[in-house]
Amino acid sequence: MKEHCAEPGRYRRQGFPEAVYGPGKTTPQIISIGKELSKGSGPVLVTRLEERDFKKIKKHFRGCSYNKTAKLAVLKEDVALKRSAPPGRYICVVTAGTTDMPAAEEAAAIAEALGNNVQRIYDVGVAGVHRLIKHETRLTKASCVIVCAGMEGALASVVGGLVGCPVIGVPTSVGYGVSFGGVSALMSMLNSCAANVCAVNIDDGFGAGVIASLINRDGGK
Amino acid sequence: MKEHCAEPGRYRRQGFPEAVYGPGKTTPQIISIGKELSKGSGPVLVTRLEERDFKKIKKHFRGCSYNKTAKLAVLKEDVALKRSAPPGRYICVVTAGTTDMPAAEEAAAIAEALGNNVQRIYDVGVAGVHRLIKHETRLTKASCVIVCAGMEGALASVVGGLVGCPVIGVPTSVGYGVSFGGVSALMSMLNSCAANVCAVNIDDGFGAGVIASLINRDGGK
Amino acid sequence: MKEHCAEPGRYRRQGFPEAVYGPGKTTPQIISIGKELSKGSGPVLVTRLEERDFKKIKKHFRGCSYNKTAKLAVLKEDVALKRSAPPGRYICVVTAGTTDMPAAEEAAAIAEALGNNVQRIYDVGVAGVHRLIKHETRLTKASCVIVCAGMEGALASVVGGLVGCPVIGVPTSVGYGVSFGGVSALMSMLNSCAANVCAVNIDDGFGAGVIASLINRDGGK
Amino acid sequence: MKEHCAEPGRYRRQGFPEAVYGPGKTTPQIISIGKELSKGSGPVLVTRLEERDFKKIKKHFRGCSYNKTAKLAVLKEDVALKRSAPPGRYICVVTAGTTDMPAAEEAAAIAEALGNNVQRIYDVGVAGVHRLIKHETRLTKASCVIVCAGMEGALASVVGGLVGCPVIGVPTSVGYGVSFGGVSALMSMLNSCAANVCAVNIDDGFGAGVIASLINRDGGK
Amino acid sequence: MKEHCAEPGRYRRQGFPEAVYGPGKTTPQIISIGKELSKGSGPVLVTRLEERDFKKIKKHFRGCSYNKTAKLAVLKEDVALKRSAPPGRYICVVTAGTTDMPAAEEAAAIAEALGNNVQRIYDVGVAGVHRLIKHETRLTKASCVIVCAGMEGALASVVGGLVGCPVIGVPTSVGYGVSFGGVSALMSMLNSCAANVCAVNIDDGFGAGVIASLINRDGGK
Amino acid sequence: MKEHCAEPGRYRRQGFPEAVYGPGKTTPQIISIGKELSKGSGPVLVTRLEERDFKKIKKHFRGCSYNKTAKLAVLKEDVALKRSAPPGRYICVVTAGTTDMPAAEEAAAIAEALGNNVQRIYDVGVAGVHRLIKHETRLTKASCVIVCAGMEGALASVVGGLVGCPVIGVPTSVGYGVSFGGVSALMSMLNSCAANVCAVNIDDGFGAGVIASLINRDGGK
Amino acid sequence: MKEHCAEPGRYRRQGFPEAVYGPGKTTPQIISIGKELSKGSGPVLVTRLEERDFKKIKKHFRGCSYNKTAKLAVLKEDVALKRSAPPGRYICVVTAGTTDMPAAEEAAAIAEALGNNVQRIYDVGVAGVHRLIKHETRLTKASCVIVCAGMEGALASVVGGLVGCPVIGVPTSVGYGVSFGGVSALMSMLNSCAANVCAVNIDDGFGAGVIASLINRDGGK
Amino acid sequence: MKEHCAEPGRYRRQGFPEAVYGPGKTTPQIISIGKELSKGSGPVLVTRLEERDFKKIKKHFRGCSYNKTAKLAVLKEDVALKRSAPPGRYICVVTAGTTDMPAAEEAAAIAEALGNNVQRIYDVGVAGVHRLIKHETRLTKASCVIVCAGMEGALASVVGGLVGCPVIGVPTSVGYGVSFGGVSALMSMLNSCAANVCAVNIDDGFGAGVIASLINRDGGK
Repeated sequence: MKEHCAEPGRYRRQGFPEAVYGPGKTTPQIISIGKELSKGSGPVLVTRLEERDFKKIKKHFRGCSYNKTAKLAVLKEDVALKRSAPPGRYICVVTAGTTDMPAAEEAAAIAEALGNNVQRIYDVGVAGVHRLIKHETRLTKASCVIVCAGMEGALASVVGGLVGCPVIGVPTSVGYGVSFGGVSALMSMLNSCAANVCAVNIDDGFGAGVIASLINRDGGK
Repeated sequence: MKEHCAEPGRYRRQGFPEAVYGPGKTTPQIISIGKELSKGSGPVLVTRLEERDFKKIKKHFRGCSYNKTAKLAVLKEDVALKRSAPPGRYICVVTAGTTDMPAAEEAAAIAEALGNNVQRIYDVGVAGVHRLIKHETRLTKASCVIVCAGMEGALASVVGGLVGCPVIGVPTSVGYGVSFGGVSALMSMLNSCAANVCAVNIDDGFGAGVIASLINRDGGK
Repeated sequence: MKEHCAEPGRYRRQGFPEAVYGPGKTTPQIISIGKELSKGSGPVLVTRLEERDFKKIKKHFRGCSYNKTAKLAVLKEDVALKRSAPPGRYICVVTAGTTDMPAAEEAAAIAEALGNNVQRIYDVGVAGVHRLIKHETRLTKASCVIVCAGMEGALASVVGGLVGCPVIGVPTSVGYGVSFGGVSALMSMLNSCAANVCAVNIDDGFGAGVIASLINRDGGK
Repeated sequence: MKEHCAEPGRYRRQGFPEAVYGPGKTTPQIISIGKELSKGSGPVLVTRLEERDFKKIKKHFRGCSYNKTAKLAVLKEDVALKRSAPPGRYICVVTAGTTDMPAAEEAAAIAEALGNNVQRIYDVGVAGVHRLIKHETRLTKASCVIVCAGMEGALASVVGGLVGCPVIGVPTSVGYGVSFGGVSALMSMLNSCAANVCAVNIDDGFGAGVIASLINRDGGK
Repeated sequence: MKEHCAEPGRYRRQGFPEAVYGPGKTTPQIISIGKELSKGSGPVLVTRLEERDFKKIKKHFRGCSYNKTAKLAVLKEDVALKRSAPPGRYICVVTAGTTDMPAAEEAAAIAEALGNNVQRIYDVGVAGVHRLIKHETRLTKASCVIVCAGMEGALASVVGGLVGCPVIGVPTSVGYGVSFGGVSALMSMLNSCAANVCAVNIDDGFGAGVIASLINRDGGK
Repeated sequence: MKEHCAEPGRYRRQGFPEAVYGPGKTTPQIISIGKELSKGSGPVLVTRLEERDFKKIKKHFRGCSYNKTAKLAVLKEDVALKRSAPPGRYICVVTAGTTDMPAAEEAAAIAEALGNNVQRIYDVGVAGVHRLIKHETRLTKASCVIVCAGMEGALASVVGGLVGCPVIGVPTSVGYGVSFGGVSALMSMLNSCAANVCAVNIDDGFGAGVIASLINRDGGK
Repeated sequence: MKEHCAEPGRYRRQGFPEAVYGPGKTTPQIISIGKELSKGSGPVLVTRLEERDFKKIKKHFRGCSYNKTAKLAVLKEDVALKRSAPPGRYICVVTAGTTDMPAAEEAAAIAEALGNNVQRIYDVGVAGVHRLIKHETRLTKASCVIVCAGMEGALASVVGGLVGCPVIGVPTSVGYGVSFGGVSALMSMLNSCAANVCAVNIDDGFGAGVIASLINRDGGK
Repeated sequence: MKEHCAEPGRYRRQGFPEAVYGPGKTTPQIISIGKELSKGSGPVLVTRLEERDFKKIKKHFRGCSYNKTAKLAVLKEDVALKRSAPPGRYICVVTAGTTDMPAAEEAAAIAEALGNNVQRIYDVGVAGVHRLIKHETRLTKASCVIVCAGMEGALASVVGGLVGCPVIGVPTSVGYGVSFGGVSALMSMLNSCAANVCAVNIDDGFGAGVIASLINRDGGK
């Protein structure tokens, strides 16, 4: 969910598309930026877009889709599918609780838009660690795991200790009191005692989805 | 590891003894305060005391012991044992890594000085959660669990989800970078998604040991 | 007031129920999660639920009650009362000021739903310490004391010095300026010079109520 | 313990003297600044001065004294005593624990150097509130109370609620973990629910002593 | 602007009245608390009260007044005036800018309700220090100065250097960016290089008014 | 540079070895832990080990090497080389300045120990962006880039915008003032407007080296 | 965007005008303050003024203009143009993304109101550094560059390394998560490894515009 | 006092030289880097260099000088003087107290090395504002003012209000308690209500000297 820098050539140059951060932009502004970016070779993403705004926008672009939980619009989606991950490779997206779903769906939707197979393992927070362990086999076969968790964010460390692939932590702004809007979860992920855990910004499902795609689809190339 | 308020009657009144915080005090000062406090009915504890200082102090008191890892001296230890926990009840002290041992030993030593049976489960950090789960039965039979962990402090939540007794988190000042001297671990413990987890101050094994003793020995009375 | 991890078996396994954190969930979502959780053996709690939403929800569950100050709904309340604390044992819930009441009532309501006798001592902030001292006898006979205080949170230390049982501090988000939404009160409680004081997250009456119940009802078992 | 601004006329103009902050200055520098300031009408204070340095300095000034606990040197002390507080008026200096003494003695020594009667009430922390209450009469007759406390700093609020004069809180850098070098105590004092409590910087006994003197000696004039 | 602790006897015991913090309380609640407090000997203050709420409340109390800028209601005002400051003595209330006026008026109104003469010197921020210096004589004759300033809060230090009486800094939540809602101004005041400056909580005009009254009216008694 | 959890099976299970964090451990402790871990299938790393301590340790293990800049010891190095990255694939390690070298060398040494080709591009901070751009081709052909930077940490974003592979930011504790020991650089990396940038903890070259190895050697498997 | 201190003579004395900070002031208040200030010799600025409020205000002043993006009103604009920068000298205003435009336009509008030529280079964030480098010649000929950037704020350092004039960083409150409302960008700018970068407060386009004008128009006089 | 990026061409390209940050580098390293940089067209600066190290270094370079207070070495000083500021133009360097002198001397020495006339006005902190005002004429004629102040950092605002040129605040790490190593002073300077004040990093005299030189010598070009 990064702020865009309007550069049509990014997809060709870097293998992932520009994203337009929706909040604070008018519908005409989004259409205008979207038009400019769609001159490039890949799809165009609009993050944190309300559904009512998507309805106004979609007629101006071909091949659009919208993910309600992620509030993510993909414009020129057909283009996105041109380049796919090798068969059998997949990304796991894991959440601690239901309130982590918006970030998780943002990550999943972007990874799918970039041609990846995504498997969702939701609601397996560490206060019931046996529920997580049931999924151990599926986790260990993934080429990358994205863990979305708020509050104490402990799930990233536990998953990190189970798998042999990179784990990308997405701290979420879920919680109250000393969760400090996701800062506590972020600090947990950065302090992780599992060496294969890294982190992106709070609620940054977009970034996690892009990085996971680079690892899964391109083998990190 | 609280700063003492020199009150000889505390043990009789509250059931746990005064503790003298060692750092910054001269040996004569510690002897003097210890003498005053030993007029009361219970043992006297000196926390964070270097072994060389204990050697100077011990001859002034009867029934002394010293725990090197915890750097804890118990003066008038015989007194401490007068009142014991009911048979079969015990406290578990759990650590994530070896560097959490000083806080853990401080907690354990105080609980033992107050007449409790303590079981140690060390080095079971969440990056290898299967090691922790091996101890599940022993954990679930405890009347109280103390979890000492630094860095991301996730262990308290995982243990909290396994047991049906109070879990007292002791964040430790272990780590570097955004561990912020234990603040990250503390925040994790306070944000715990397990409802039975509470926390004491960073490295405060003393406080955890006292509270666990009140729960185990007195059944919370 | 923890985020739930939807696990019907928690009550049987841990002795305290799942809680559904109300804010950010639609009424149908709460009903659906509640239905799933009510398959388990204990009551189901919904925290921070507006009264107008409770009215929509209650017809879907038997044995419901609602505490307006705590904004807490207990579904399947009859079940809750099956297991009670030993006669004569009780929990004290203490507040510094009237604005600490929502957290205090949340704690009290949960403790009562779990079969505990609760005694309320409200509005005894430290700026009038004689009012607190009047209640000393009642406090010293409790098996656990919950102290809810915002601003400087000093009440936990003063109570901690009076009693010989565990004191659970609930910092509240009351105040302005450097109260920092409860952070100052939390730090006071963690820094407490009384050894028997621990703390839960800001405004986490739910967690305090659960822990106090484990101490009072089960004698810490 | 403020940094000096070398102004010989301050005592005549403001009624309190310049203070030279000792640390980081060489002995010749302190002598030189002291000489310049001693041209003014009042005494000259040197704060946080090691005793060995005082011994080198004192021969250059007449009427010197040194307070070892406060590490405070008063040069030209005879001058200080010219202007005294009205008979019967006094300042109370109160501490929570023994480690608060350096700040307390700094405050007391400055107040005495400025011609005030000071009464010390030490080691009356809130974890044993009855010890404080024994001194209630003496406290209520003071014209100003200085409260030095670290850790949770709760003592200022409790004293504030007992007396009808201004209470100046001096947070001390005592403690560990979330005491954050006195920040927690400072926040407690600023958040005090007693309306007559104000605060100075951490460990700033000098400032507290000056303000208390202005209130006691000059009746606030 | 402290949260009240409902104690009718406070005015007689401490010489300043209870204050009811308005926000978050319903009109009936304020009337009820006000009735209880008005059994005491002094006036009753309600802080941060909207004018429309004052209109509903005032008929229940005799001798009411309302300060619109301070949003302060004084109930039983006639009582307040019984005890006045000695003739000739006054408090200065100083502000840096117009946005500091609510805190300043709260301080001034409380001081006046407690029987003090108050002189206002507004809009003399340090970016035009000559405007402040014009008022030097008036400032130096005050028995106490209250300085209300936001942003960098530098005015307290400058005033502190001009006068020989206590200066009470009231940091205000004015500003944006790194003013952090008054924290920057608070830190400036606590760091003041003028020894006679202390501080109260952000926007706490009430506390400053009470302390200034104790200094001016009672000569600090 | 994670704290180890002594688990000999980690290399086989996860594909990267245990690391023993050197500081705070005695030489005998390190030898003992190293012996235990060397029963597993992979190499054993000791991080932040002083050279004088390595000299004492190395005779107890076969196939040892030591990197002076990284202060990293690799025990059983021969084992490490069994599994190598595909030919032609490499990791770039980039630094802003010379003081970032310890973290960079830690990352590089670990990646090399795990069988990866590493290319170093050092001293290309953003204040001379043309120096960085000279290396653009080499950067764009890497399968993963590690960027080590302190102070403002801007280099990660600039590199992120140039390449189409994952970029792992390692904030370093270089700087003074508001660098806050690496926190500012960490925040820059997490806030990066380049979507392919993630971060590890401050100075955590070890974690970055492990993750880069998983991406480069195993294609993210 | 500083808070005004109502001083009509500032323009003559300092060469830049008073600014009235609009938010929180009523239209009549702004007119009244504006009238008072317009007695001085220069223009009067009103910052963060909504367009609907400008429409009410403009009829009371001659020579008004309004910048919608900057939300800046210039009253008595004709006066402003009396004193212009030397021909050929100009200020560059640079932004990282479109959301930085309000601060950038505030800076540009103020600089123009003070008689400076301003060149805008927008949307050249560091994630596409080649776009920035295209403008290198224009940047290096400026007499001062203002860089407005949020999130990681890295643009200031990159620009600083390209030019030989002062660079004024304006951190913007753009972003989410650890951008902390502009604090991260501010820290980046202050930590800049380019020696010619300084910073103003978050979103303070006004301050940046004034300083740039003093450098460009007056050659720093 | 920026970390260097070893680029010999910087002086020709940007008009100010590379600086080598001394701490943490060995004497041979400094000589080596200095040799490389001295191939460029301007002088080479070494900041925070101990005098004993300068003595070892100076024989390797021609035209060396050393400023003891600033701990600054200038190598190839003769080169530096080639390009001077226009006659009559000067920079003022102002300090609040004597402990601000190292940063002030660093700024002054760099400005002088770059060909500027510097006037020092030291020890004019705001607690004695009349001392500052005595220098008003000299201040108002400067083309740029550097203000070095710790603690509350208020001096920058007061100076900013007196002059019509840019004011560069250098917060210093002087103080204790809530000075937080210069953070409080930095926040004051950024919050300044004087529009012409900007800031550099804590203790960054080097950056301030460079920027002031660009303004004074080159008229901002």
